[in-house]
Amino acid sequence: MLVCMLQRPSVGGTVSRSLDSLFSPRSVAVVGASRDPAKWGGQLARGALKGRHRRIVGLVNRSGGEILGSASHRTLAELPDAPELVVACVPAAAFEQTVDEALDVGARAIVGISAGVGEAEERALGRRVRDADAILLGPNCLGVFDRDAELDLAPWVDFPPGEIGLIAQSGNLSFELGLLAAREGLGFSRFASLGNQADLEAAELVESFARHATTKLIALYVEDFRDGRAFARAAASAGKPVVLLTVGGSEAGVRAARSHTRALASDLAVVDAACRAAGIVRVSTPRELIEVAKPLLSGKRLRGRRLVVLGDGGGHGVVAADVAARHGLEVPLLTPSLAAELAAVLPGTATTDNPVDFAGGGEQDVRTFERVVQLLLDSGEADALLVTGYFGGYGTAAEREVAVALVGAAERSGVPLVVHSLFPDSKALVDSGALAYREIERAVSALAALVDREPRCVPALASEVVPPVEEGYFAARTLVEDAGVPMIAARPVATAAEARAAAAELGYPVGLKSLVSEHKSDAGGVVLDLADPDELDAAYRGFPAGPCSVERMAVVGDGLELIVGVRRDPRFGPVLLVGLGGVFAEVFGDVALALAPVEPAEAERLLRSLRCAPLFDGARGRPRLDVAAAANAASALSQLAARAPWIAELEVNPLLVTADGALGLDARLVRDTMEEPS
Amino acid sequence: MLVCMLQRPSVGGTVSRSLDSLFSPRSVAVVGASRDPAKWGGQLARGALKGRHRRIVGLVNRSGGEILGSASHRTLAELPDAPELVVACVPAAAFEQTVDEALDVGARAIVGISAGVGEAEERALGRRVRDADAILLGPNCLGVFDRDAELDLAPWVDFPPGEIGLIAQSGNLSFELGLLAAREGLGFSRFASLGNQADLEAAELVESFARHATTKLIALYVEDFRDGRAFARAAASAGKPVVLLTVGGSEAGVRAARSHTRALASDLAVVDAACRAAGIVRVSTPRELIEVAKPLLSGKRLRGRRLVVLGDGGGHGVVAADVAARHGLEVPLLTPSLAAELAAVLPGTATTDNPVDFAGGGEQDVRTFERVVQLLLDSGEADALLVTGYFGGYGTAAEREVAVALVGAAERSGVPLVVHSLFPDSKALVDSGALAYREIERAVSALAALVDREPRCVPALASEVVPPVEEGYFAARTLVEDAGVPMIAARPVATAAEARAAAAELGYPVGLKSLVSEHKSDAGGVVLDLADPDELDAAYRGFPAGPCSVERMAVVGDGLELIVGVRRDPRFGPVLLVGLGGVFAEVFGDVALALAPVEPAEAERLLRSLRCAPLFDGARGRPRLDVAAAANAASALSQLAARAPWIAELEVNPLLVTADGALGLDARLVRDTMEEPS
Repeated sequence: MLVCMLQRPSVGGTVSRSLDSLFSPRSVAVVGASRDPAKWGGQLARGALKGRHRRIVGLVNRSGGEILGSASHRTLAELPDAPELVVACVPAAAFEQTVDEALDVGARAIVGISAGVGEAEERALGRRVRDADAILLGPNCLGVFDRDAELDLAPWVDFPPGEIGLIAQSGNLSFELGLLAAREGLGFSRFASLGNQADLEAAELVESFARHATTKLIALYVEDFRDGRAFARAAASAGKPVVLLTVGGSEAGVRAARSHTRALASDLAVVDAACRAAGIVRVSTPRELIEVAKPLLSGKRLRGRRLVVLGDGGGHGVVAADVAARHGLEVPLLTPSLAAELAAVLPGTATTDNPVDFAGGGEQDVRTFERVVQLLLDSGEADALLVTGYFGGYGTAAEREVAVALVGAAERSGVPLVVHSLFPDSKALVDSGALAYREIERAVSALAALVDREPRCVPALASEVVPPVEEGYFAARTLVEDAGVPMIAARPVATAAEARAAAAELGYPVGLKSLVSEHKSDAGGVVLDLADPDELDAAYRGFPAGPCSVERMAVVGDGLELIVGVRRDPRFGPVLLVGLGGVFAEVFGDVALALAPVEPAEAERLLRSLRCAPLFDGARGRPRLDVAAAANAASALSQLAARAPWIAELEVNPLLVTADGALGLDARLVRDTMEEPS
Repeated sequence: MLVCMLQRPSVGGTVSRSLDSLFSPRSVAVVGASRDPAKWGGQLARGALKGRHRRIVGLVNRSGGEILGSASHRTLAELPDAPELVVACVPAAAFEQTVDEALDVGARAIVGISAGVGEAEERALGRRVRDADAILLGPNCLGVFDRDAELDLAPWVDFPPGEIGLIAQSGNLSFELGLLAAREGLGFSRFASLGNQADLEAAELVESFARHATTKLIALYVEDFRDGRAFARAAASAGKPVVLLTVGGSEAGVRAARSHTRALASDLAVVDAACRAAGIVRVSTPRELIEVAKPLLSGKRLRGRRLVVLGDGGGHGVVAADVAARHGLEVPLLTPSLAAELAAVLPGTATTDNPVDFAGGGEQDVRTFERVVQLLLDSGEADALLVTGYFGGYGTAAEREVAVALVGAAERSGVPLVVHSLFPDSKALVDSGALAYREIERAVSALAALVDREPRCVPALASEVVPPVEEGYFAARTLVEDAGVPMIAARPVATAAEARAAAAELGYPVGLKSLVSEHKSDAGGVVLDLADPDELDAAYRGFPAGPCSVERMAVVGDGLELIVGVRRDPRFGPVLLVGLGGVFAEVFGDVALALAPVEPAEAERLLRSLRCAPLFDGARGRPRLDVAAAANAASALSQLAARAPWIAELEVNPLLVTADGALGLDARLVRDTMEEPS
């Protein structure tokens, strides 16, 4: 059995460190503090001094003198009180010296604002700080903020107070998130700018934010995940919603991220696999992040995907139904008995099958909304309710009472209710505290954000390591077979005579593969369906001299060719890929990924998530295929990859799945020289 | 050659009618005018009276008396001046009588507000009005509005004045569009509520709005297209942007539309085919409609899809590149020479390959934006520019000058420039008149809306009609072959002896199809690859007694099985469908549609729009296929359908495309008893 890492994970093999010295230090020093309020050193000094009633604040400036009414000192060593946290806002050339001085005076945490420090130097400094049992954020970062500790060492962003903990790799995007959050009435509990992650990485920050009671939701903008597996484990164990804004959906985006943060970009499909495993909500823009944060912070969750849409007027229901479908929600027909109950409280022209169109019933009597919502909540047929259209615009006292009653009834039943209204700012809706939106797509996406994520499980990697094998076709076959994936019978041959002997043993027809040109790529030529020794000889003569494989021919028939494979992502480690093989593989790209290893049951779920999955179960008069055998093969490869960090890629393609089993027809191994992600 | 209807189309075979009596009547009467301002009759009276300085306004109320200071009359006949336009706001039972009285007093146009009139009665009234050379809008409509004529007979919606002409089938959605437009600084020139389209349909209204100089953009919300082909022709000839909000993207949406407006829903894929042909921009929500209207009203257009993203800070560029890709825009690498020119005006750490990241260059000197934009515009490498991030927030006088300069330079070069800014309301951006957005997805979708649509061509249907043929496999084959699609050789047989004779003539191996169970569905059993008379006999004995077809076996080899077919949409008429056939047809749904008829070149474009299209050109070592032959077959079917309104469905599936041609392997015909859309 695999271990599902739901317990608190450790990072980098060490016990997770406390980041209290970073977020709530008893004393802080700003090195590079400036008199000039336009300079970052000036803003940092101002930000640090705002917390003077909470902690000792020291300012370090090479020239000394007074800054914002406080005396500054020439060096850290000259400060009367040794700082627990040091902010280094110095030129790149002075960064190393500042770090050393900070460690010398006993600092427990360092925030590296400095940009332009070389990559190798950064790494060395990161190690040096870690070895001193201190922590380093950055360098090339924009500081930290902690609401409760009144620590504002990122004063260029005006973070409104609130419950979001933000970890970000872009200053301007953090700024934008601050502005967008404020417009939605949201705010921040904590902020950490990741910078170049010389020591502290996203994973460890997520662990810290998970322990931070004031933080109710962890939001991240990350381009470079570093130890992505640790990040996913930390998110899975956080015990609060984690929303990730990341990039890599386009070639230009990947290129730009590489320029921006030297990100060793993971395929977005791998990131999504990690997000699914960890229960992370992935978004693509700052607006999306804030828009999913709002409903997630409400604490509500959908138990299923059945949405009932209701409103007074048909057009809005029609549009809402389409938008809901696009967001993956269902708008199912209501049962006849429920429809009849609704009809009894609605005008004769009303529609009661979902969407529910009051057809003027709300205009006649706004309490109709209350009756309909109560019937829907009582029915158990709705996982969520969406009121759409005019509601909020009647402007009567009764409407306000109804709005309050709707929200109360929904709260009691645990069924989320969201309102799309032409008048989201009306007194009725504001007083009710309803989640109310001006645009239908925002209302629906808020509900979609509340769909409960799958149980969270980020698989751990085994500690024992399978010894590496050489590359090569037969080595790959053996590796795969030893893992438990049956392969078509094959014999290595080096001469025409050996080929004939092998064919006689296997039985005609046979296939012949040249192994001459194989090197981290497909094998050379392949000739199939050789019926007799003469055809075999002819094929052999047509090949370049060198090793070949003689193989039994598989009966494809009504079988389906799949791909199962594993590859090592530089950030997230081994990943299982399953997909449709054959001639349509590339054009449809029907593949699904999961962090390896996966159990057979999870591999089967993954296979069944493919678009071609209906063909497994005998669609169009075809036989039912042995999906379990394919799932076993996929699971076996994934378990192997979890124990073999030297596998860069290992693929069985095609894996022929028939009614009776699954059989690999080709295998390919690429070894990685770099055995662990950096 | 097909005729491409770019000239002004006619509707229903008649010359397009003037709608002046509807939108700018010299006199108007409201039947059902009320003293009660809460009633629609009261609001209509108030709205009509607002235009008293422009026209004679008569109020009709069964009880007579004064309404809003004006005398009312008991009947239309009693009015001192005969009205050109009559608004009928009366109970359904009194609607017919009101229409008759309106025609009796010589009204040229009638607006039917009344709801609940039966469908048959509505149709009869529509004909009666048309026969009297008058026009009827509605019934069950919400009135009309004309900004220039100061005609407000839809006073429940507060339409801000502007350049959008709106035709809508939902009152509440019109209301919402009015509110959303006002927030974006947009407004309306005209409004017509479609209602049940007893006489006036969307097509004729689009023609009228096209002639209306004040209307710069035609926006529609339509659930039921009635004569969809006429609608598409009218939109294609409008000479101004047409934006369509419609529904049908989900089962629940279709169901709701049927309840709401009795819409005979067209498949959304058919609507999209019509939109492509007519150059209509289709949207799914009110917000999307307003958001594409704004840039379209600017008059700017993209010449291509090459977007250059620029900004001061990397994160925003990374996110923008991904969003652009999702919206179908390209963010290509800039040429080395242009990149070098950019590098010369940017800091050494800047990225110049697109996205262009100033890396602090803008903060150092805001005029950097001007230099970079000018270089990009001069280069000819950008079809559009997107400034993203902090710009707008520097707050200096220089920034305002730069913003004005950017907009001016872009205007002169004809390359649209859009700004995504954390500060879209800043003085710099507002003064510059730039299209500026707070959210990156809105900025990118504004640019995407400006991508030039394909040349507009809505094919006309031929007037001559091919005589109907019976259903049946061989009739379908003959129909298809006569149209010019080669079919595999086949012989009808009724006995085992006839089958053997046919097979001997065609040559073994053969296939055998039972035609017994075929009735508007696939033929019965099929057995392929019968190698000799014994196998044929055995297959024949296994079939139910009755007619069969003996067929030559096609050599599939490296060929590809496609589907080509035509079907008659109840609203848009004959539609050509091409797609991937075979076992993966259903799971991938790789199909493309076009209004029939299409020329072979257009059919080939359609085929090449399929996801499987890379396989046509010899991907993965396969032979290049004869796509032209498949396109000829598709075009031939489409031309046939355009001349045969009795064809409900005609499908060649599979059409085997090989390196040497295209060959139909099966054909199926379903006749329609209803020969014209209602």
